[in-house]
Amino acid sequence: MPDGAHLKPELPLVLSRYKDALDLALKDVISDRSIFLYDMLRYCMGWADANGAAFETEKGKGIRPSLCLFTCDALGGDIEEALPAAVSIELIHNFSLIHDEIQDSDEIRHHRPTLWNIWGIPKALVAGNVMRVLADKSMSTVLPDDSKLLSASSSIVSEACLEMIEGQYMDISFEGGNSISVDQYMEMISHKTGALLRSSVHIGAVIGSRGGRVADIFREIGIKLGFMFQIRDDILGTWGETTSTGKPVGSDIRRKKNTLPIIHARETQTYQEEITELYSLESIEDHHVDRVLDILDATKASHYCQGLVENYALDVSKDIENIGISKNSKEEFKELVSFLVDRNF
Amino acid sequence: MPDGAHLKPELPLVLSRYKDALDLALKDVISDRSIFLYDMLRYCMGWADANGAAFETEKGKGIRPSLCLFTCDALGGDIEEALPAAVSIELIHNFSLIHDEIQDSDEIRHHRPTLWNIWGIPKALVAGNVMRVLADKSMSTVLPDDSKLLSASSSIVSEACLEMIEGQYMDISFEGGNSISVDQYMEMISHKTGALLRSSVHIGAVIGSRGGRVADIFREIGIKLGFMFQIRDDILGTWGETTSTGKPVGSDIRRKKNTLPIIHARETQTYQEEITELYSLESIEDHHVDRVLDILDATKASHYCQGLVENYALDVSKDIENIGISKNSKEEFKELVSFLVDRNF
Repeated sequence: MPDGAHLKPELPLVLSRYKDALDLALKDVISDRSIFLYDMLRYCMGWADANGAAFETEKGKGIRPSLCLFTCDALGGDIEEALPAAVSIELIHNFSLIHDEIQDSDEIRHHRPTLWNIWGIPKALVAGNVMRVLADKSMSTVLPDDSKLLSASSSIVSEACLEMIEGQYMDISFEGGNSISVDQYMEMISHKTGALLRSSVHIGAVIGSRGGRVADIFREIGIKLGFMFQIRDDILGTWGETTSTGKPVGSDIRRKKNTLPIIHARETQTYQEEITELYSLESIEDHHVDRVLDILDATKASHYCQGLVENYALDVSKDIENIGISKNSKEEFKELVSFLVDRNF
Repeated sequence: MPDGAHLKPELPLVLSRYKDALDLALKDVISDRSIFLYDMLRYCMGWADANGAAFETEKGKGIRPSLCLFTCDALGGDIEEALPAAVSIELIHNFSLIHDEIQDSDEIRHHRPTLWNIWGIPKALVAGNVMRVLADKSMSTVLPDDSKLLSASSSIVSEACLEMIEGQYMDISFEGGNSISVDQYMEMISHKTGALLRSSVHIGAVIGSRGGRVADIFREIGIKLGFMFQIRDDILGTWGETTSTGKPVGSDIRRKKNTLPIIHARETQTYQEEITELYSLESIEDHHVDRVLDILDATKASHYCQGLVENYALDVSKDIENIGISKNSKEEFKELVSFLVDRNF
């Protein structure tokens, strides 16, 4: 198990401070209409059960919208101005989750059945699409008096959304492939996960700095945070504990996912053939999972992956030092970075 | 067979005049990126075969974008200004087709295999989503110097897109239902088909009149055109010839679709039970189709449906008389209305 995967760190301030404001704003956007379709969205967000009755359950970390608001905040902006953008990004994230779950036939998310699993693919597909339109609607209300910044912000989200979808396409295309290189993989995750995460930091900075050039630096930071986030996700999908991740140990292996640990191990000549064989099996049993975990141990895959995460963290910490935000904001930002290095959920 | 369904009228000028400009603009938006995903979009648009090689095939009628440009044109606007909106609406239409085909398990469109049928659901889903983002991108370039009109135009499309998706949801919810009323059905099609068609007329008028109040009248006309279009579609899906529609006679019956002819017939007490029984069968054979067609005859379903189409046409023709556009434009508009009454493809 990689360092830190056994700890459950506290949620850093950056991820907890804006939760209530975000929740209110998100509820405001989604509870607008009454047909049952919107209860599906509320279920997806963790506010309703499968019958549409009010219900509170474990939610996502809200890392994207929180980052958007924090960045705006740290640059002295008014978080109320960034709120519609943060909401938009969170809705796009949820849109992508709903469609991803269909694509990957995922039956469970956060310990609850996924939308398609309850309501079937056609309705889940539609629910995802509505989420996406609501995201657009929210985005269109950003900075109504500054059409230039509104247009810039919309473009950032639109471009990120396009890259994210292209990343999903690459990911699907990789499925069953045995020769994906680490470079190809990094390209894919920079699109699939990275683009939206990058856009949340970027757009918060654009709004917070009123279009200042500092936003470009935040954009670069956002790219690095995206890699950290996804690689740590791969670590958790391989070695994480069910109790914290909501998925069984080795769940990504069981699903024959091409994650970074696997791709790294496959680049080691000695095990290439064996992994390819194991990943060609109709179904992966417990002893196969154990064997893959042994190979990952032998190739020091967790050390390699966690090393990458820590390198990005170091890099981001340096970037943070060089931007013009308060000492306090720098500390908070670094606390978030530490969390992303060690998180086990 | 209803009046006119055996004729193949010429495409009216409104639908042919802008085709080249639209084609160029659409190709411009889609050919921007190179991964194979975009070849899937080109296949969908009828410009490429399943291997991505250039290819020209039968396309849709392009009624929505043509209406957008024509309305702008008729009001003395510059069609170049409306072009990005027309492109956006056509892309949204194609996005909805791709996802609809997944939802309805449609294997063929315009004599060609559908996207999911060739590339599987995950990739087709993604292709639809990209289509949607490209629509947004195109929309964001409308009237760059008039942020008020840009924002108004974006809202019109966004709202229409939301209604369209809600309509898809209603349609899916109706599936297998035996008690849908004509009113519920009209509500559903006003969303699923009507909203986007309405928006194309509305937005063309908003741009053509630079936000003038005449746009509201066009919006109302758009609503009526939407009903005409969908009800005629239901007629063609029931009685249309394969050669013109690309679907076998009775294809909607075979698929147990709740179309207006069926819903109307089911509102006649005498046949209610029999239709319900026929529509409960595992699979509908030729003699079942024949029996349903007999019932539709007995309930004068085609007369009823075509009567509605003609009433809307009459209504729209009156509206056209009362708007301030040239005599020539009025004639062209009426020619389009006649086409929508009689079209058999």
